[in-house]
Amino acid sequence: MVHIVKEYDERKNEFLDTAMGLFMTQGYEQTSVAAIIQAVGVSKGAFYHYFKTKEDLLDQLSARATDQAMVAIHSILQDPALSAIERLNAIFTTTNAYKAENRDLVMTLLQVFYSDTNLILRYRLLEHNLQVLSPVIAEILHQGNAQGSMSVDYPEETAVFILRIGASLVEGIAKQLPLDPEDTEGVAGVLRHLNMYNQAVERIIGAEPGSLGLVDESIIRVVTGQS
Amino acid sequence: MVHIVKEYDERKNEFLDTAMGLFMTQGYEQTSVAAIIQAVGVSKGAFYHYFKTKEDLLDQLSARATDQAMVAIHSILQDPALSAIERLNAIFTTTNAYKAENRDLVMTLLQVFYSDTNLILRYRLLEHNLQVLSPVIAEILHQGNAQGSMSVDYPEETAVFILRIGASLVEGIAKQLPLDPEDTEGVAGVLRHLNMYNQAVERIIGAEPGSLGLVDESIIRVVTGQS
Repeated sequence: MVHIVKEYDERKNEFLDTAMGLFMTQGYEQTSVAAIIQAVGVSKGAFYHYFKTKEDLLDQLSARATDQAMVAIHSILQDPALSAIERLNAIFTTTNAYKAENRDLVMTLLQVFYSDTNLILRYRLLEHNLQVLSPVIAEILHQGNAQGSMSVDYPEETAVFILRIGASLVEGIAKQLPLDPEDTEGVAGVLRHLNMYNQAVERIIGAEPGSLGLVDESIIRVVTGQS
Repeated sequence: MVHIVKEYDERKNEFLDTAMGLFMTQGYEQTSVAAIIQAVGVSKGAFYHYFKTKEDLLDQLSARATDQAMVAIHSILQDPALSAIERLNAIFTTTNAYKAENRDLVMTLLQVFYSDTNLILRYRLLEHNLQVLSPVIAEILHQGNAQGSMSVDYPEETAVFILRIGASLVEGIAKQLPLDPEDTEGVAGVLRHLNMYNQAVERIIGAEPGSLGLVDESIIRVVTGQS
């Protein structure tokens, strides 16, 4: 039984990895189910054993990526020593560090997702992330209200809002990528946007100025490739 | 000469109006250039006299809509009696009133633009609006800083940000439309989102709590059809 489950997951992950590779090189819209089946080298029936449609595969792909990130985030949430502010900072720091460590993948994703042909792919990923992450952020905002370090009248709506504006920010920045490390003006512009986001979130949740550090130098390593 | 220009504009507007009607009823992606030409009842050459492609027509369509709205906004900007806060409020009030007066059109646009098939259309309209409106908002933020009623470290970036998060907000709300006026919970939810946006903008620009009134009851008339 364990053996069968393992085989099931392995084949499914093989489909997901192959599809992701094709989406990144050819674009989501341009990749057919037939091309995915051909690249994996199995029968048509095998694909439809795992996925209803290409969109269903996409949903499962984004679910897998988010689930991986959520493992680290849940350990932050379960650390009783952290305050609400520390929790919020830790989630952003963990996410930033993950991006810095996987720079090539992140840069490829940014450039592919933010092309016009991949609007639907980007849109679905955002919606999925909102669903998974917003309850986590909302819980932290409630905690911050209780601890007196935040002042948020609508925690649930504000949580979705912070994530949506984060996505808006990334969208604005992604258009300027990749940045040459020598392009001092370009790097300064990205930093200005990131600092503005940090300050905006601080103000929206009513936290002390300077209490959030959502932006760290690992982000600059991502956008410039400096290490 | 005047006569020729008038004919040119009239025919162009006829193309734009017809295309808009088809986009609203059939969706942007599903509407071909051939269908637009057939609906106007002119030759293929006439279309290409005005537009390079369907996308070019779309760009001109969004430019026309924004230009119409900008006439009212420019008169607000040129009124020397208004403070920065009053200017920002007046721009939002004018836009809200326009939406309430054109409720049927706005509801159709919202429902069509926010369907997955019209992501590209929505995306282009947003980008166009950002380009036209963000310098206006940035100017007001600079003025607010000078008058001491606002405290904005990055006026240009913050202006784009306020508009992007406004679009994010509309996106969140559009999914719940149309609302039954009897659906008290739904109407309360929309109001909560709008009040949150108002407070978020107030905090982001460092304005006094309660100084902005970006949300008024005309918006509720739009989403529920109450009059």
